[in-house]
Amino acid sequence: MTQKLPIGVFDSGIGGLTVLSELISQLPGESFIYLGDTARLPYGTKSPETVTRYALGAAQFLMSRGIKLLVVACNTASATALPALRQALAIPVLGVVEPAAQAAARLARQVVGIIGTESTVASGVYQKLLSALRPELKLLARACPLFVPLAEEGWFNHPITHQVAEVYLHPLREAGVDTVVLGCTHYPLLARPIAQALGPEVALINAGREVARQAGELLLREGLLAGQRQGEVTLLVTDAAPRVRRLAAAIIPAVADRLELVDLTETHKARRSHVGSASLAG
Amino acid sequence: MTQKLPIGVFDSGIGGLTVLSELISQLPGESFIYLGDTARLPYGTKSPETVTRYALGAAQFLMSRGIKLLVVACNTASATALPALRQALAIPVLGVVEPAAQAAARLARQVVGIIGTESTVASGVYQKLLSALRPELKLLARACPLFVPLAEEGWFNHPITHQVAEVYLHPLREAGVDTVVLGCTHYPLLARPIAQALGPEVALINAGREVARQAGELLLREGLLAGQRQGEVTLLVTDAAPRVRRLAAAIIPAVADRLELVDLTETHKARRSHVGSASLAG
Repeated sequence: MTQKLPIGVFDSGIGGLTVLSELISQLPGESFIYLGDTARLPYGTKSPETVTRYALGAAQFLMSRGIKLLVVACNTASATALPALRQALAIPVLGVVEPAAQAAARLARQVVGIIGTESTVASGVYQKLLSALRPELKLLARACPLFVPLAEEGWFNHPITHQVAEVYLHPLREAGVDTVVLGCTHYPLLARPIAQALGPEVALINAGREVARQAGELLLREGLLAGQRQGEVTLLVTDAAPRVRRLAAAIIPAVADRLELVDLTETHKARRSHVGSASLAG
Repeated sequence: MTQKLPIGVFDSGIGGLTVLSELISQLPGESFIYLGDTARLPYGTKSPETVTRYALGAAQFLMSRGIKLLVVACNTASATALPALRQALAIPVLGVVEPAAQAAARLARQVVGIIGTESTVASGVYQKLLSALRPELKLLARACPLFVPLAEEGWFNHPITHQVAEVYLHPLREAGVDTVVLGCTHYPLLARPIAQALGPEVALINAGREVARQAGELLLREGLLAGQRQGEVTLLVTDAAPRVRRLAAAIIPAVADRLELVDLTETHKARRSHVGSASLAG
């Protein structure tokens, strides 16, 4: 029964757990299998070809476990690998970039801020989508390179994080942004310092919340809702360093102790030789 | 003439330019060729096998350009790949870990602090070397994960960097450290905040300075000093993202505009198929 299959969630690391967390809270009757490719992060500095190859390998791995929907909870992979994933997989695939851009286009009045890692901001992916949806909006993008390390240090509400947010976001506030896209899955962890630096009148777009809403609509439309009382959550990572475990525990305390280590390279190789999935080798 | 050949310097990224900078200032008559593997950093999160393979590839690339000495300006590669490099190369190889540990053993009175990335601290490499050299010393290690991103942001002397240094180094100061090993090539860039947080009486060990001294001694001993009026510096990186150029300019302004991009993977593959250097394939 396809309905009973879990939803696959894939990220380059642990930040995507903020997306999983939104999915669990909006779709409590679903089961989830999360795969964080912690051994090969970050993806943001890698070439599009490499990111696509890694994403296809991760998707193939999740398919072999059986999933009914794939959520790509990684900005870089969402911006780069979605066409290849949609072509290679027989199930629906959702990324985090489109839902966030659509929500921003729906909510924005005049000026939209986009914050993310240096590579996401430089890729211009949010800027392109927003310009296509609402060409009259004024857009302002700002890379915030210290936000990920601050989140990974667990300093979600630390005075230093507040000061860093102040430094990064002051120009956006000055420019009168009314809506800001959190263009990195780690950023919802810093929602308090970010909101405080921007002021209470600014709407923050959480990509995880938006993709969870779209996932719910899609499953309903396709008759794929599991409708269980409570689903199960499986967490898989390709490297379980202490900081990975620590951060997982900070984001999803209830399930973080169930972190399992998998070797994606080996499994992917094994599967490739099994099923000869040349189209999946990128 | 071997004497006229440059000294090769290899790092996973740009932090090793602090080592190059010490080498240039102590050995102004030498030429240098620096290779930063910016496309594949960080090394600290990768397995020892992968780090060794990458280091051998980089060394092979530098050998093909002609060098008389290899300085490994990367803590992870120095801790992991030195035996393999020394076995594979016909020229002398110096790492940053041993010279720094030796200097700490020479200078320390009672309590030595070791600061570095999470992986360097967890590897215990400085702790092992220091315990072997002076078993009576009390050792205290502390990972400082935000130092590298702060340095890469260019916040060398920013008030926020001072506060982060205060948070990280307060326990070391409380424990009465008299000597602290800067166990990461980025850390000399934050020397002022680090020194201020530790207090003026604490000796800071700069691995670049120590390896430059050992390099000078070695060249003199082996009759390999170039003895030119002024040497030349070549900077090669495997990825020249804007932040790489920016950081290089902040560390070595005089030569940073000469940054050249090389494709290590292709060159290494090409060389391997040429010379069939199976022992270098790791």
